[in-house]
Amino acid sequence: MPTDAVRLFNQPRLLTPGPTSVPPAVLLEMAQPIIHHRTKQFQGIFKDVSEKLQALFRTTGPVLTIAGSGTTAYEAAQVSLVVPGSKAVTVAGGKFGERWQDVYDAHGVEQIKINVPWGDAVTGDQIEQALKANPDVSVVTLCHSETSTATVADVQGIAQVVRGSGALLIVDGITSVGAMPVEMDQWGIDVLVTGSQKALMLPPGLGMVGLGPRALERLESVKAAGYYNLDLRRWLASWHKHDVPFTPPVSLIRGLRVALELIEAEGLENVWARSAKLAAATRAALQALGLKLISTSPSDSVTGAYYPDGVDDSQFRSALRDRYGIHIAGGQDGRGDKWKGKIFRLSHMGYVDAGDTLAALSAIESQLRSAGLKANPGTALAAAGVELQNA
Amino acid sequence: MPTDAVRLFNQPRLLTPGPTSVPPAVLLEMAQPIIHHRTKQFQGIFKDVSEKLQALFRTTGPVLTIAGSGTTAYEAAQVSLVVPGSKAVTVAGGKFGERWQDVYDAHGVEQIKINVPWGDAVTGDQIEQALKANPDVSVVTLCHSETSTATVADVQGIAQVVRGSGALLIVDGITSVGAMPVEMDQWGIDVLVTGSQKALMLPPGLGMVGLGPRALERLESVKAAGYYNLDLRRWLASWHKHDVPFTPPVSLIRGLRVALELIEAEGLENVWARSAKLAAATRAALQALGLKLISTSPSDSVTGAYYPDGVDDSQFRSALRDRYGIHIAGGQDGRGDKWKGKIFRLSHMGYVDAGDTLAALSAIESQLRSAGLKANPGTALAAAGVELQNA
Repeated sequence: MPTDAVRLFNQPRLLTPGPTSVPPAVLLEMAQPIIHHRTKQFQGIFKDVSEKLQALFRTTGPVLTIAGSGTTAYEAAQVSLVVPGSKAVTVAGGKFGERWQDVYDAHGVEQIKINVPWGDAVTGDQIEQALKANPDVSVVTLCHSETSTATVADVQGIAQVVRGSGALLIVDGITSVGAMPVEMDQWGIDVLVTGSQKALMLPPGLGMVGLGPRALERLESVKAAGYYNLDLRRWLASWHKHDVPFTPPVSLIRGLRVALELIEAEGLENVWARSAKLAAATRAALQALGLKLISTSPSDSVTGAYYPDGVDDSQFRSALRDRYGIHIAGGQDGRGDKWKGKIFRLSHMGYVDAGDTLAALSAIESQLRSAGLKANPGTALAAAGVELQNA
Repeated sequence: MPTDAVRLFNQPRLLTPGPTSVPPAVLLEMAQPIIHHRTKQFQGIFKDVSEKLQALFRTTGPVLTIAGSGTTAYEAAQVSLVVPGSKAVTVAGGKFGERWQDVYDAHGVEQIKINVPWGDAVTGDQIEQALKANPDVSVVTLCHSETSTATVADVQGIAQVVRGSGALLIVDGITSVGAMPVEMDQWGIDVLVTGSQKALMLPPGLGMVGLGPRALERLESVKAAGYYNLDLRRWLASWHKHDVPFTPPVSLIRGLRVALELIEAEGLENVWARSAKLAAATRAALQALGLKLISTSPSDSVTGAYYPDGVDDSQFRSALRDRYGIHIAGGQDGRGDKWKGKIFRLSHMGYVDAGDTLAALSAIESQLRSAGLKANPGTALAAAGVELQNA
């Protein structure tokens, strides 16, 4: 019997840090017949979605839903809120922080770039110094959870620092909202952005922008730099009428309502707790195998580790997919740092649960051992088991 | 935060030894619009299904598909093939063996009942003695895998014994066909029965009866005792025309085609190997926790263990369902043996994979520890991990 052909893991498991897998109830809702968006029916759905997004963002302010990816939504926030002629403090410690710097470069916005080593988190002190040295800063942008380096920043502390200035804090919460505690109003985040294909358990295709009172005020004074996603005021004006300015992805929005109902039914804090527990179990398992984590400030939504010597990234991840049905992510290259081929990452967001995580850890251990890692079989599962059962 | 409400296992996992979970591809096929059964389209599907069932049963003979549960199919085989006025040797060592005795009792068939202790397997010697002492036996019935006791019998050896007599061997393969090696033609099984809701990865609703040459010959001489399921000749006559005598569950039959395609694509031997590995990992994990298996001849399609002292069956399984989404089975009561409340069982058939099994073992360990079992956290997962990685 060809043992290599035996598939002990026979179900597809998507553990990339976006897209993430979509629950059957959401898939079935998206399979409903298309309705027209200029109808009371759609407006009712959109109103529900908007209210549930406010609960998710922990805000009483508007949360706009824009067709596109998280990048659409973040560019919208960046460009709609920076004061023309002013500077932006932009933090990068990974691929996505660098992307937000690229966005401002593309729009000709002058930046104070704070670049931290990949895997490290920016500190409030660093932001404070940049703001003090540059009184004409109108926005600060940073990632709450930098997906490429699996690193979380202390947004609560940073928000306090930024509120002491006239600048707005625009937070990329693409892999944090719905996966870990983010208190938009309580922490004083001015703008919070996320995307549909992460903790929200939807296919890619939607970005969301939450706007606090200072951001709403700023919107009134900044001249629009464009049309579809470069003028948030269009989306805001429609939002007040439970509507959207352009034809929306109706099926995704129907699915979003069901996904948000699932989160509501489970309890947002319980969802956060699950992601935190899966992250802790994953870190414990990988470290038990002797692997080094890529972050000095690990996020609870995604975990990354360096490959041991001699493991080929492409072969490793292909084997996980082909032999175990487990899809995880590799590393990304930035401007300076080149992590492609050196690391792997797996997600703890959304519909993924302890069963998927145990499957992934078992497959990772098995495949690393095939590639020469010295570890007793069962090491990763035992360490994860301890962590899962710790109260 | 109410820790009890945190669901680390957030997906439903059906690990009962029937029904078992149904793959998405099969569910989607069954969601297709209803077609009429007296059409070339349906006959084409039914022909495919019948051919694939022959491959599954490892037979060149007809495999009939009857609407109903496995019990319909088994009663059909029992009643259609026993020679009126002759005796039946019937083996019971669990709930289902006893059921087949009840069927013959209901039909007034005289039986030589071989009752083995629950958890033990009948031997070829026991069958041989019964046949020698009773030359007027026309059928022998037994379970290949007795689901209630998670016990496998040596059907290959027993078939050899029965072939030395004039009796036909009617095998209940309801939890063996598609889950473990069963070679209908090569072993010389005269009649082999299974059901849709086990290794075939379908909802309940279909039973299948494979007929060997001696059974086909017998069918010609036995007078029918009834109509729908008590006269297999009706089903056989239609089968030759790729048809069914009564309105069939069209959606289930469409789904069956896809399920059989999945088995074919994976390779039947690979499917058997997966079930065997999951069973071995489960036995190792439960024994590592100090639990005693319920069978002296454990089946690879279902595993059962006695509860440790002080664990309440109903509370335990409710907690597994409510807190972990894991649905396993309890014990069943027979005529003498009363296993309700004393044991639990979980399945390794069909779509279940190592990820589901690890999830179940983690939840079982966690819940047994909550109920007072002394074991280090991670014990079950570590033992399963070793077994899964053993070649």
